[in-house]
Amino acid sequence: MNTSAREQYIVGVDLGGTNIVAGAMPADGTRHLAMRSIATNPAVGDEGVAERIVGLVEEVILDTMGETGVSRRDFIGIGVGAPGPLDRERGIVIVAPNLGWKDFPLRDRIQSRVNLPTTLDNDANCATFGEWWQGAARGGRNVVGLTIGTGIGGGLILNGALYHGSSDMAGEIGHTTIDLNGRHCKCGNYGCLEAYASAPAIATRAREVLVREEGESVIPTMVNGNFDDITAQIVYDAAQKGDQVAGEIVRDTARYLGAGVANLLNIFNPDIVVIAGGVTAAGDALFVPLRAEVRRRAFSPAVRTVKIVAGELPGIAGVVGAVASFKQQHLGGV
Amino acid sequence: MNTSAREQYIVGVDLGGTNIVAGAMPADGTRHLAMRSIATNPAVGDEGVAERIVGLVEEVILDTMGETGVSRRDFIGIGVGAPGPLDRERGIVIVAPNLGWKDFPLRDRIQSRVNLPTTLDNDANCATFGEWWQGAARGGRNVVGLTIGTGIGGGLILNGALYHGSSDMAGEIGHTTIDLNGRHCKCGNYGCLEAYASAPAIATRAREVLVREEGESVIPTMVNGNFDDITAQIVYDAAQKGDQVAGEIVRDTARYLGAGVANLLNIFNPDIVVIAGGVTAAGDALFVPLRAEVRRRAFSPAVRTVKIVAGELPGIAGVVGAVASFKQQHLGGV
Repeated sequence: MNTSAREQYIVGVDLGGTNIVAGAMPADGTRHLAMRSIATNPAVGDEGVAERIVGLVEEVILDTMGETGVSRRDFIGIGVGAPGPLDRERGIVIVAPNLGWKDFPLRDRIQSRVNLPTTLDNDANCATFGEWWQGAARGGRNVVGLTIGTGIGGGLILNGALYHGSSDMAGEIGHTTIDLNGRHCKCGNYGCLEAYASAPAIATRAREVLVREEGESVIPTMVNGNFDDITAQIVYDAAQKGDQVAGEIVRDTARYLGAGVANLLNIFNPDIVVIAGGVTAAGDALFVPLRAEVRRRAFSPAVRTVKIVAGELPGIAGVVGAVASFKQQHLGGV
Repeated sequence: MNTSAREQYIVGVDLGGTNIVAGAMPADGTRHLAMRSIATNPAVGDEGVAERIVGLVEEVILDTMGETGVSRRDFIGIGVGAPGPLDRERGIVIVAPNLGWKDFPLRDRIQSRVNLPTTLDNDANCATFGEWWQGAARGGRNVVGLTIGTGIGGGLILNGALYHGSSDMAGEIGHTTIDLNGRHCKCGNYGCLEAYASAPAIATRAREVLVREEGESVIPTMVNGNFDDITAQIVYDAAQKGDQVAGEIVRDTARYLGAGVANLLNIFNPDIVVIAGGVTAAGDALFVPLRAEVRRRAFSPAVRTVKIVAGELPGIAGVVGAVASFKQQHLGGV
């Protein structure tokens, strides 16, 4: 057998507060194999969640072997994306509020149990890196990525490489102030972008308007009068049905995001801004007013240079980027 | 004569709306020679200002020859820092509102008249690059520089290299929104950092308070009742004398700057933030509340990583950085 022709495989893991997603890819990135998702179940604690990850990784390896006929020794490593702040060099998750973790050595736990070299990187960095390697940000030299969900994560590709900052904390775009004396954010600061445009913030703003009974809306009927059940998804669904209150909330969201993206244009002058996460399903209802707000706020040479696009790898950008991060840290490039 | 031992010299030029500063340095950066400043006099037009620069460069070359005994052939080039937006590759200043320029090929004008290779770079980039090479940001891997004057310019050193973005527009930190519905900025946007914390903005805020006759202040006496004569310098002088209104303005300025710097910490996670310009003369009166606001707003791992310092090369950071930019573009490194 010609071993030099054998493909090498890498497992990617995307650890979120709700789900763990994992899958395998050949090092050349040509295929996505055995992609699967399980509940994170943070209640089992840090060691318990690490065990769940190890179990999922073993499952992905076995399934990939079944699908492709490769053997276990063709797997060269595991890339893990996890919520930050984290310490890449020591492989430690420093704090993860949604998981209840503090100073947990996630990388070494997985590495020693699966017995494969493992790398750790920030989940939002991985999502952006994934979109840059294989998705909507392909070919970009300077890319800003925003992942909008429970929070707003950010990732930066500058001069063709993932930018981590001086202590792996860079890219916390969701926690930049767009309104000095504005809404309180769960990070402790006031007026953060995340406090206006994350999925829970969208739901909160809808609730505030509906409680005041300003304007007619189908949303109360959609949630049977339980305002606590309002989600960003429901707001976007109502907006698509032509609901006026919901439409206003969606336009406001675009305006807040537009101010945040305009700041990023004036700071980074990127060629691509890629926005991922559930809210991008709104399509033009989000992107048209968002791009208009960016044009109003940012310098026109920076506006002319940039494409503002939706992510193309929903659900798996983080896994693909975790594989890319392993490649960059262990193989010296992607 | 051993020509290999001869030092090579580079002329640096910092073109501002008010003054042109220039000087020479040996390529190893060990000395600042023949530093001098003349009025820009924008009324003479783009070609006229270019001639003034050429005259100043020739003067610097002659004076350096006189001071050091080197000959004209020991000069290898000219680095020019100019207001942006500009196109480094084509050597063109695209727009410079303070000079009234549009699409002016400044680099080639100087190059052909002095007959030395010439490079062009953004003035705020040069100031930051100068502080990184020889000033307060020495040794930094990721540095954010703010120069506060008539405007607020920004420069970024990321992973040890000047970051320009995809079309030389990066670093417009003064034009990032910190207050979504806030003050109108001369860039057309609302709530820009520059609209709160530049020198004219400081004077404007003081004027607004004094017109309302809230609180006692020595400022009206200092300007003989002519509120139009209030400058940031006068506000800082009054604050140092214990003036309450002025003290409040200075603290507010620190709060606005602190919000802007906190955003930069959460985005870049730099090891050094260097703040230059006239307002830094206020010293602790500015830096103590500024650092406190940053601690309140930014993530603590990013706060722990960073030093926030005043520039150490007042008046010449731009010239030193223009020399460094020439070195990076022509000699491949600094």
